[in-house]
Amino acid sequence: MPTLLQHRLDPSCRLVRLMLGEYGVDPKLEDVSHWKRDARLVDIDPAATVPLLLEDGTRAVIGPSAVMHHIEAQHAPSQVAGLIPVDIATRAEMWRMYDWVMLRLNDEVTRYVLEEKIGKRELGQGSPDPSALRAAKANLSEHMQYFAYLLATRRWLAGPDLTLADFALAAHLSALDYLGDVSWDVHEEVKSWFARLKSRPAFRPLLSDRVIHMPPSRTYADLDF
Amino acid sequence: MPTLLQHRLDPSCRLVRLMLGEYGVDPKLEDVSHWKRDARLVDIDPAATVPLLLEDGTRAVIGPSAVMHHIEAQHAPSQVAGLIPVDIATRAEMWRMYDWVMLRLNDEVTRYVLEEKIGKRELGQGSPDPSALRAAKANLSEHMQYFAYLLATRRWLAGPDLTLADFALAAHLSALDYLGDVSWDVHEEVKSWFARLKSRPAFRPLLSDRVIHMPPSRTYADLDF
Repeated sequence: MPTLLQHRLDPSCRLVRLMLGEYGVDPKLEDVSHWKRDARLVDIDPAATVPLLLEDGTRAVIGPSAVMHHIEAQHAPSQVAGLIPVDIATRAEMWRMYDWVMLRLNDEVTRYVLEEKIGKRELGQGSPDPSALRAAKANLSEHMQYFAYLLATRRWLAGPDLTLADFALAAHLSALDYLGDVSWDVHEEVKSWFARLKSRPAFRPLLSDRVIHMPPSRTYADLDF
Repeated sequence: MPTLLQHRLDPSCRLVRLMLGEYGVDPKLEDVSHWKRDARLVDIDPAATVPLLLEDGTRAVIGPSAVMHHIEAQHAPSQVAGLIPVDIATRAEMWRMYDWVMLRLNDEVTRYVLEEKIGKRELGQGSPDPSALRAAKANLSEHMQYFAYLLATRRWLAGPDLTLADFALAAHLSALDYLGDVSWDVHEEVKSWFARLKSRPAFRPLLSDRVIHMPPSRTYADLDF
């Protein structure tokens, strides 16, 4: 059983847990703070990167891409049954949307919200900057509109089948949702897509996550949000 | 022959050209500006993403991950002869360094330098902010120290063999080098690693790149820099 050193609200850690859950692997979770550079994490990786996966308790696999590709290669039942599409065109669309989430959405929304609401708090750097949060909120609203546009004509983010891109977006939105930053009722398409993901067994462990002194939003654990 | 819509100094576009060069594919290059949202680019991708590869002149493959994985799957002579290592541990180290370059180095150095020196210029937004450039320079110096530390004990960035991580870092450093932002003489290990890469046939087309009204640094095209 692999051990995952994670931060509960880090979207890449959430993506990795969703992948492992989807493949029926139940990792041992160890909570660490990359913000505070916890000794446990820095001992293995001086750069304090999460997610960090210890396969067989020893060999360290470090960072989002390394862990994601490792899980896909080692734990997917087969390439065809994996989260990376085999068809060339669908795969290209999947990676396009993966980058969209991991680069654009992260740069324009998730990163700011987490730095302001979690990073500052863990480092005792005071309260969030309202103008950064307002900008992130406005950006998220545009992203949601785009996701709704796509999901109006396709069942999943990259096409007819569930892929890694869906889990990537779900990981980001669920972190934002925990903090009460997602307006679910504006875009019905995104809400029903998220409801479908949320009801998968892989999602269940995430829904019971709690961050100390910071209860989740009303919608977070609710399957009928 | 694929067509690549690229910005000459964009590191992900440079990475893609290096991969294609390494695999003996000579793409048709079309210069576009994602900063200015050129019509040619926006017609295909309203989000104006580069790199954008048109395989067979038609099917669009959009964004860094999509194009990179597409090239690796379609143009590598075989999986073993490709740029993504087959060995599990080496592959994990390769992806760790790939993320290091594409996320950390980009966020802390390359992105700022390009935004300040190229983006602002293309958009007519005035001259670069000296404080942003100073911060990027200080950050680059720390990154170079880390790369030198790694390259003191391994021939290539992720181990004994050339991988995608080497081309990713070379793509970023060559863009910065064009703009005169790399101090090559501080870290001998990085300099000799870059000299080895620069002398590969795949690198040659990049060395003759010129950006209008912006000549390259003295070291840029020199193999004995």
